[in-house]
Amino acid sequence: MSTNIRDIAKNVGVSVATVSRYLNDSGYVSYETAQRIKKEIERTGYTSNMHAQAIFKKQSKTLGLMIPNILNPFFNEVITYVEDRVVKAGYSLLLCNTSDDKGKEKMHLDMLKRFRVDGIIASRSLCREEYKSLQIPIVSFENNIRDDVPIVTADNYEGGRLAFEHLNSVGCKKLLHIEGPKTFDATVARAKGFVSAAHDYGCNVDVLNFNTDFRYDMAIDSDKELLKKITKYDGIFVFNDISCANIMNGIMTYGVRIPDDIKIMGFDNAMISTMVKPHITTIAQSAQKIADKTVDILLDIIAKKTDYELVNYIDVKLVARESTGLGNKNMN
Amino acid sequence: MSTNIRDIAKNVGVSVATVSRYLNDSGYVSYETAQRIKKEIERTGYTSNMHAQAIFKKQSKTLGLMIPNILNPFFNEVITYVEDRVVKAGYSLLLCNTSDDKGKEKMHLDMLKRFRVDGIIASRSLCREEYKSLQIPIVSFENNIRDDVPIVTADNYEGGRLAFEHLNSVGCKKLLHIEGPKTFDATVARAKGFVSAAHDYGCNVDVLNFNTDFRYDMAIDSDKELLKKITKYDGIFVFNDISCANIMNGIMTYGVRIPDDIKIMGFDNAMISTMVKPHITTIAQSAQKIADKTVDILLDIIAKKTDYELVNYIDVKLVARESTGLGNKNMN
Repeated sequence: MSTNIRDIAKNVGVSVATVSRYLNDSGYVSYETAQRIKKEIERTGYTSNMHAQAIFKKQSKTLGLMIPNILNPFFNEVITYVEDRVVKAGYSLLLCNTSDDKGKEKMHLDMLKRFRVDGIIASRSLCREEYKSLQIPIVSFENNIRDDVPIVTADNYEGGRLAFEHLNSVGCKKLLHIEGPKTFDATVARAKGFVSAAHDYGCNVDVLNFNTDFRYDMAIDSDKELLKKITKYDGIFVFNDISCANIMNGIMTYGVRIPDDIKIMGFDNAMISTMVKPHITTIAQSAQKIADKTVDILLDIIAKKTDYELVNYIDVKLVARESTGLGNKNMN
Repeated sequence: MSTNIRDIAKNVGVSVATVSRYLNDSGYVSYETAQRIKKEIERTGYTSNMHAQAIFKKQSKTLGLMIPNILNPFFNEVITYVEDRVVKAGYSLLLCNTSDDKGKEKMHLDMLKRFRVDGIIASRSLCREEYKSLQIPIVSFENNIRDDVPIVTADNYEGGRLAFEHLNSVGCKKLLHIEGPKTFDATVARAKGFVSAAHDYGCNVDVLNFNTDFRYDMAIDSDKELLKKITKYDGIFVFNDISCANIMNGIMTYGVRIPDDIKIMGFDNAMISTMVKPHITTIAQSAQKIADKTVDILLDIIAKKTDYELVNYIDVKLVARESTGLGNKNMN
């Protein structure tokens, strides 16, 4: 039998209205009474019924975060920073790992709607139709979800340009870009920036498209056709650091020397970039800046403020390391 | 103005009872009517009120998963496998990242209680007091939460023994164990197994305790005292793979050759173990087996079945790789 507010009031010897004031922080309760109510709540394990509260107050003090791929360490970083800021603002955070799978994403979106979350942080999505009718405050990071939904994103196009300029400056002649899935705004912009900069310099670059973000079953080192395609280049820009680490690992298994034979770089400056040898040259984007800005705008929308920007770019910069023949110097 | 069940019924031209039967899957609705109701629900964006439903039905079809440290790739693997199995069983999954922080863990537990989740998958916890009064089906992985809560765990003690036997067999004489936090049952058992096996062989081993799981700010390579302590050994067993990768990276920066100068190994067989060079020798535990068993027992408890075991060990095995001088051969 579960405890209700009447039991708490009776056991403490106060009125239901007093317990209600205490629970809702909505009027005077003496310190001594508050302590007794608090103890009784702890003793009985009473939980105010959040479902009933949510119906009544129309807010759940909970935000949802859609994570495209929990195996990508960049998103792990975004999660920790989003969580820190959300918790400090007094909200709980529901993490929803979509695994870039439409069915899972839809299931999570339905769950967030049913739980009446106060806001959603969206990311790349295969459910843009579902988002069209969503009547909940939304901010998106990295990807455009809906024209009226604010977006916070690294300047991926500029990052692609910086990547070309770096590989060009260290003497690479046969350039390849390994492009992320065509459905990810962020990786498409990186590819566009890379190709456009090459064009400006009068260079040709090849592009090889990957259909998915990094996954466990990406056995680069056993796909001989893929290895042959990759190893005829001397400069490679991979769409993110975790995929870059995976490709480096695959080609080094076949005796390719990095950076002597091939110079290779990634994007993100994720933790993995300095955990592998050689350390990975990368385009750094700040997971913390993206997380902070995204949460701040969402809280603004929830608070009915309107003075935020619809499109918010976060700066990127080159971090040159061993995988392109540089030391651990920051080139920017 | 939001749509309610009456609007749906009126627009489709059927009774409220028919829509209710459709929504609750609780009686006959013709295929053609069901299709029209479905379309109208999609058109209006109607969501049945989960909060009201949860109060009425006393189930939310949602499970909670407590994650101790989302930066540890082993837990990322556990998440993906738990999620797969939970979704297949028709439940949604709420991910709660505790970051091994008591305040955050308590906040998440409160949230799961308020949302009336049908069950919780717990892990290492700093809130064992709060778990005592929790009236929700719980299964724990890796850590003991409460005497009546089933636990699913790799045989960490046996893993520690295998680690000693391996380092001993490849000729290491000065052995160190880098032990995880004393509050983690799993890493404490690994340490005990390692020390106990050494004792059986008449060997001395030193133990160095780390206070936290892997974190970004663990700058091994700038902590000269720590480096000096570590590099006087020729065989090191680190409590998990991500920390092992981090320590390898730190000591190699100072010119230590692995495996020539120091042989080192981890625990988990996490993805990171084959992404770094040299590839890490490790004690493999199956994230998938742990996840599957944990979810299955939780679903059994929810279904009021009682024929599960309280303690469930998952086998471990040695995977010998380059970091202890072996090839990519599986030694077991």
